[in-house]
Amino acid sequence: MSKGIPKRSEDYSLWYNELVKKADLAENSPVRGCMVIKPYGFSIWEKMQAEIDRMFKETGHTNAYFPLFIPKSYLSKEADHVEGFAKECAVVTHYRLKNDENGNGVVVDPEAKLEEELIVRPTSETVIWNTYKNWVQSYRDLPILVNQWANVVRWEMRTRLFLRTAEFLWQEGHTAHATKQEAIDESVQMMNVYAQFAEEFMAVPVIKGIKSESERFAGAVETYCIEALMQDGKALQAGTSHFLGQNFAKAFDVKFTSKEGKQDFVWGTSWGVSTRLMGALIMAHSDDQGLVLPPKLAPIQVVIVPIYKGEEQLNAIRDKVNEFIPALRKAGVSVKLDDRDTHKPGFKFAEWELKGVPVRLAMGPRDMENNTLEIARRDTGEKETFDLSNDLVAKIEGLLTDIQDSIYQKAVAYRAEHTTEVNSYEEFKEVLESKGGFVSAHWDGTAETEEQIKDETKATIRCIHIDAKEEEGVCIYSGKPSSRRVLFAKAY
Amino acid sequence: MSKGIPKRSEDYSLWYNELVKKADLAENSPVRGCMVIKPYGFSIWEKMQAEIDRMFKETGHTNAYFPLFIPKSYLSKEADHVEGFAKECAVVTHYRLKNDENGNGVVVDPEAKLEEELIVRPTSETVIWNTYKNWVQSYRDLPILVNQWANVVRWEMRTRLFLRTAEFLWQEGHTAHATKQEAIDESVQMMNVYAQFAEEFMAVPVIKGIKSESERFAGAVETYCIEALMQDGKALQAGTSHFLGQNFAKAFDVKFTSKEGKQDFVWGTSWGVSTRLMGALIMAHSDDQGLVLPPKLAPIQVVIVPIYKGEEQLNAIRDKVNEFIPALRKAGVSVKLDDRDTHKPGFKFAEWELKGVPVRLAMGPRDMENNTLEIARRDTGEKETFDLSNDLVAKIEGLLTDIQDSIYQKAVAYRAEHTTEVNSYEEFKEVLESKGGFVSAHWDGTAETEEQIKDETKATIRCIHIDAKEEEGVCIYSGKPSSRRVLFAKAY
Repeated sequence: MSKGIPKRSEDYSLWYNELVKKADLAENSPVRGCMVIKPYGFSIWEKMQAEIDRMFKETGHTNAYFPLFIPKSYLSKEADHVEGFAKECAVVTHYRLKNDENGNGVVVDPEAKLEEELIVRPTSETVIWNTYKNWVQSYRDLPILVNQWANVVRWEMRTRLFLRTAEFLWQEGHTAHATKQEAIDESVQMMNVYAQFAEEFMAVPVIKGIKSESERFAGAVETYCIEALMQDGKALQAGTSHFLGQNFAKAFDVKFTSKEGKQDFVWGTSWGVSTRLMGALIMAHSDDQGLVLPPKLAPIQVVIVPIYKGEEQLNAIRDKVNEFIPALRKAGVSVKLDDRDTHKPGFKFAEWELKGVPVRLAMGPRDMENNTLEIARRDTGEKETFDLSNDLVAKIEGLLTDIQDSIYQKAVAYRAEHTTEVNSYEEFKEVLESKGGFVSAHWDGTAETEEQIKDETKATIRCIHIDAKEEEGVCIYSGKPSSRRVLFAKAY
Repeated sequence: MSKGIPKRSEDYSLWYNELVKKADLAENSPVRGCMVIKPYGFSIWEKMQAEIDRMFKETGHTNAYFPLFIPKSYLSKEADHVEGFAKECAVVTHYRLKNDENGNGVVVDPEAKLEEELIVRPTSETVIWNTYKNWVQSYRDLPILVNQWANVVRWEMRTRLFLRTAEFLWQEGHTAHATKQEAIDESVQMMNVYAQFAEEFMAVPVIKGIKSESERFAGAVETYCIEALMQDGKALQAGTSHFLGQNFAKAFDVKFTSKEGKQDFVWGTSWGVSTRLMGALIMAHSDDQGLVLPPKLAPIQVVIVPIYKGEEQLNAIRDKVNEFIPALRKAGVSVKLDDRDTHKPGFKFAEWELKGVPVRLAMGPRDMENNTLEIARRDTGEKETFDLSNDLVAKIEGLLTDIQDSIYQKAVAYRAEHTTEVNSYEEFKEVLESKGGFVSAHWDGTAETEEQIKDETKATIRCIHIDAKEEEGVCIYSGKPSSRRVLFAKAY
């Protein structure tokens, strides 16, 4: 098959867009900015969901579901929040269509106007805190540890499949606590859960950190985040966890009576990851031949391609591979036998390479004679002949572990090569220009400096590293004193 | 605890509403007609989803995701479809809010008006068939066997938690086939999958049948359905599967080239079940004490309540039950130890009864002395003392199987008692009035008769039984000849 995707070195952005489409991950829909997630792409997202959901439940959370619509007035109740979301939201104003009198199909029925407009949720803090008001009276009702898997809509003007779409799928956790410290601990815990997921399952190393004030979530006191680095040297925010203080409790009057009988506002957090993780997964590992998927998230871990002439040879190979397929499946390996007679082996090789299947097994007439098969790994392209008198299950299990680890280490090495400490603005600009990546620099802590650097270089403060050490220095831009470095990067 | 729910015999409708709220399943939200599904209710829905999703995958389907919004013009492309949905849809007309000049929070920005209004999907045939147009060229691209888990919105004027809500959660399968027969077979297969799920997991017996023309899905050639009977003698449509013919393929110009090189329109199906199943589950089994959950869908299958005075006794019971809890969990039984010190055993008994936990184990000081515990089953209220020197895991496993079967048999018996053959309109009305349930009667096959019967009695044709036998008779209403009976009932 002709893959029809450009090289990363030629046009990284086009490479990404074409790869997403050609590998059957997603495509644009007729609705501006909304995507169709195709079955193969969705099956990767499902695997992500399953792991994340398991991690949430292991940390004591349960799922629930809240309305898609938010009354317009709710948005205004938290001042920063409305500032952050009012400018890009889908507004429902009517609840009925009627036949056009001129015969032009259906039109909005002006008599079916809503008394108050409804906003399609861009995030659900407002409607959820309004609900929590009725759930909380005493400290006994706390904590509330709830998560929701949902679709949300933000009317972005410039969209890209998975990375920035008007509608996207995500989970949003919303928790309520009796004490400030408990809420902060929860926010940090969820940042750690996200980091663990990214590193162990996506094989994407991430920096854990705190956002600067101007990058903070609208309505949060502190935003914790995980930041990943893509192969073009740009950073990608892969998940955020917000300590909300008492902001939403105050906006929606959510109070509780403590053990000591005192009334106080509840402390809150919210945290989310979205289908954006799909973009991170694709951009972190894939190459000019197509997707490279970490085995832990690959819907198909092993594909078997028979090489044959005629039905008889095919049947012999089928019989042979069916001797070991059950053992692989029993070991938890997902295996696909691609015995389509409509496509040639070369086409199949290219297709599964494009789709990022970690391990390809090929078996032809000579393998049948020798009781062997060919094992090819997607990430390195290495091939070897395997003698089937040895333990294939152990071989494959070892290989999958090795691939998972290997692509993670490759990403770690890339990030190490693309993280640079600089001490002057010239150096800063030079690094951004020449190789990109994370640039660690002193900053005077002001939003003005942050904004000027962004205007001049397009680099933003991705985060203040969670373990940033105290270090005397001067801001690379203003020359004012600074007590620690922050991480800058151009970002998605 | 005071349950605060009325008896079914006093006010069935209020009993249902209060039970849904008091058992922490769902509640109304501030958005008209939209519900909040609370954690306990959602955990039951999750169990349903998991089983249904597994059954879909076992029958060859994969999940995908399509946009929330549908361009207004798409709805009009299939004539019946737009008739069915235009009158109750949420319409997005703008994409931005702005600050009100008079300081009244935010208002819709008139400058951010969409060129074409977007409908929040009431169902996704249109946007999906528009997508399939690009996925299908040849018979090799068929069949497409895709399902989507999603939220949909239908602006219902009279809503009830789970049964009829403006927004609800559902799955919608959308398949495309090369032949008419294959599409019909798919529709029938999915009706059977739904029936199997309802009976094996929900313990709700269902009638499989075909809808009359006036009850058919807007845009379908044939609608297959499963119909269940609630404890108040009203029927509830629990799932539908539609054979769409080539209607949507023609509306969206979806053609394929056959093996023989001929062009033809693709054949389609769609099928769905929703959070309405929660309503069916609740109303089919629950009693005046609260929920009765079938063990296969109960989030907690066994609850253990210690009866103690003081910390020392509690610790002794804790140690004792922790000897057998791991074995139960290992056997796949979900167990909760309710050792809260904030509530008395009587309160806990009532709470878990209300929440429908199938098996309650209680252990007090005398049990400790005798090495016994008390086992109570929720469905019958039967209690027994169990000697812990016997095999508790086997006992519990047997009990759960028995409860699952028993509540199913109870529902089967109820339905048998409430299914009546009648041969005159007087008898028909009398049965509906006195005991309700399914009424099997001859009908002349016309929409006029169907509508007049509905107007006069509120009973509708639920379905024509899939195995309905030919039987000469006369329509109970018009006296015209009829060749088979159909099932009438008042319905949710």
